[in-house]
Amino acid sequence: MDATVLHAPGDIRLEQVPDPEILRPTDAVVKVAATCVCGSDLWPYRGVSKVTRPRRIGHEFIGVVEEVGAEVTSVRPGDFVITPFLWSDNTCAHCAAGMQSVCANGGGFGGKDRNGDFVDGCQGEFVRVPLADGTLVATPEQPDEALLPSLLTLTDVLATGWHAAVSARVQPGSTVVVVGDGAVGLCGVLSASLQGAERVIAMSRHADRQAVATEFGATDIVAERGDEGVARVMELTDGVGADAVLECVGTKESMDQALASARPGSSVGFVGVPHGAEPPMGQMFSRNVGLAGGVAPVRGYLADLLPRVLDGQINPGRVFDSVLPLSQVADAYRAMDERTAIKVMLRP
Amino acid sequence: MDATVLHAPGDIRLEQVPDPEILRPTDAVVKVAATCVCGSDLWPYRGVSKVTRPRRIGHEFIGVVEEVGAEVTSVRPGDFVITPFLWSDNTCAHCAAGMQSVCANGGGFGGKDRNGDFVDGCQGEFVRVPLADGTLVATPEQPDEALLPSLLTLTDVLATGWHAAVSARVQPGSTVVVVGDGAVGLCGVLSASLQGAERVIAMSRHADRQAVATEFGATDIVAERGDEGVARVMELTDGVGADAVLECVGTKESMDQALASARPGSSVGFVGVPHGAEPPMGQMFSRNVGLAGGVAPVRGYLADLLPRVLDGQINPGRVFDSVLPLSQVADAYRAMDERTAIKVMLRP
Repeated sequence: MDATVLHAPGDIRLEQVPDPEILRPTDAVVKVAATCVCGSDLWPYRGVSKVTRPRRIGHEFIGVVEEVGAEVTSVRPGDFVITPFLWSDNTCAHCAAGMQSVCANGGGFGGKDRNGDFVDGCQGEFVRVPLADGTLVATPEQPDEALLPSLLTLTDVLATGWHAAVSARVQPGSTVVVVGDGAVGLCGVLSASLQGAERVIAMSRHADRQAVATEFGATDIVAERGDEGVARVMELTDGVGADAVLECVGTKESMDQALASARPGSSVGFVGVPHGAEPPMGQMFSRNVGLAGGVAPVRGYLADLLPRVLDGQINPGRVFDSVLPLSQVADAYRAMDERTAIKVMLRP
Repeated sequence: MDATVLHAPGDIRLEQVPDPEILRPTDAVVKVAATCVCGSDLWPYRGVSKVTRPRRIGHEFIGVVEEVGAEVTSVRPGDFVITPFLWSDNTCAHCAAGMQSVCANGGGFGGKDRNGDFVDGCQGEFVRVPLADGTLVATPEQPDEALLPSLLTLTDVLATGWHAAVSARVQPGSTVVVVGDGAVGLCGVLSASLQGAERVIAMSRHADRQAVATEFGATDIVAERGDEGVARVMELTDGVGADAVLECVGTKESMDQALASARPGSSVGFVGVPHGAEPPMGQMFSRNVGLAGGVAPVRGYLADLLPRVLDGQINPGRVFDSVLPLSQVADAYRAMDERTAIKVMLRP
């Protein structure tokens, strides 16, 4: 089959690789209907994370079950499935507590499973999914083609934005600041809005992203960054700060800005993979601003989020402003890297 | 009057200083009935925080109102009062949200007020308290001598331990770990217990502190520290970690231990003044462990905590295992520094 391989920073290729097979009775093999490039894929693509040898990549996809192992009971060949970006048993103590992203037996795509066997990256034609029962969620029927972008956001960015809002403890009536206008940040705006925020201040200086933010429920747009951005938030909140802040980037600058925008006693929900994002502890301490979040437990949120997509309540697929065939995966990375696209969907 | 002056690390003296006076109509002058040495006083005493010139010190005291300014309405001369370790207006937006420790017009003892006038440190005979109405809380009547130690804990350590438990979101039935066996840590044990924790694991290796911890509701004592301490907590929690962790020290070691002891999805409530306590962000992110807390909003907690002390429900004064006359303040610091006392009460 064809699958994406990152050879070195900036060098991404679609190549022939072995077809995946059922290796364990709990596995499923899924045919990819749509996949995409994640902001976190850009860290190795840009060489910020080390790339020591060619590696398979991609962790977001939806598709149709091709084959299942003997012990798989919750999905059958032909089912259309949503695949959280981490596989999990959904039964261990962490999963039972809603923390499937820290599953005692789980892991990520493009690496090894607990048996030492390779698990495909998701930017390819097929993917072997370990622990299929604890991971995959089937839709009630085959979805319309038009729903695919929104369903694809469920595998990562929508659930991650949702996790930021949950971690920041957004309450009905809250004033919320969202730092980051990538797909996750925009989904954070949508999530804060769905969780009842009365006012959602989106930090963004790109007209296309501002438009999506507004569509997703942003009531205010702040184009300034850093200290100026914080000053603007303070102006908008009578000097008090926001009731909840979503940090959807992961750099030191974004973290500092998020913490400084939060009112005392509130929490910053952080979901951007930390890259140098050491928080200023003295400020957190003196201002009583907390920090919570991390890798989103996608599987746990699907029960709530999937129906909202299926019944058309929300259209998070708006974050995909470009669709390319998988053969143009290198163009997709380039567009994401140069920020000429918010998020690119890839069709095998 | 006599008051304590820190001249240099290790050089602490009781000296004659000017008597405080009412400077603003919102001031009160309070005669100190009892004061004490705080763990955080040891940072400058040990030279960890810089001491560039002689400075007044101390921020915990209870006493009797001597005189009030013309605009003070909530307390009168003769009232016995609890003094939170920070003064506050109790009316600004932060105070109204229960965050009196971040009061827009507040500040600390031993420094300058917003008018640039000196505010006494509390290890002395009298203290000028700015914003008396927003700061002081009077007891309904003159308390028994036996209640003084417990009332004194309300000014800082009990409220701070309480804040750690609130920030860690202790829930009824929780398993809680408390890192730190100083007076704050012990009050954290008591607070977790009062907030409904079913199991409270106190990290302590001193028999006298273990005894107080047990009296305060600790169900388990772990003497190991660092990785061994974490391993022991994991053993006690079936490998899952604690539902809530209270970090009551402020060093890198204690913070690492606290974060590693917390179960995914939980929060570490931190109240130890951070001294090099940069948290391991990657671990927080991958394990979904949050961090919240800071300077305790004592004034806000008094409405809940003071009645518990007055009616004898709790006896947090047990943390004072030594009482000395104020003239022996140097001995009090030495005992705290050498950990021969848990906490020393001083009587002018």
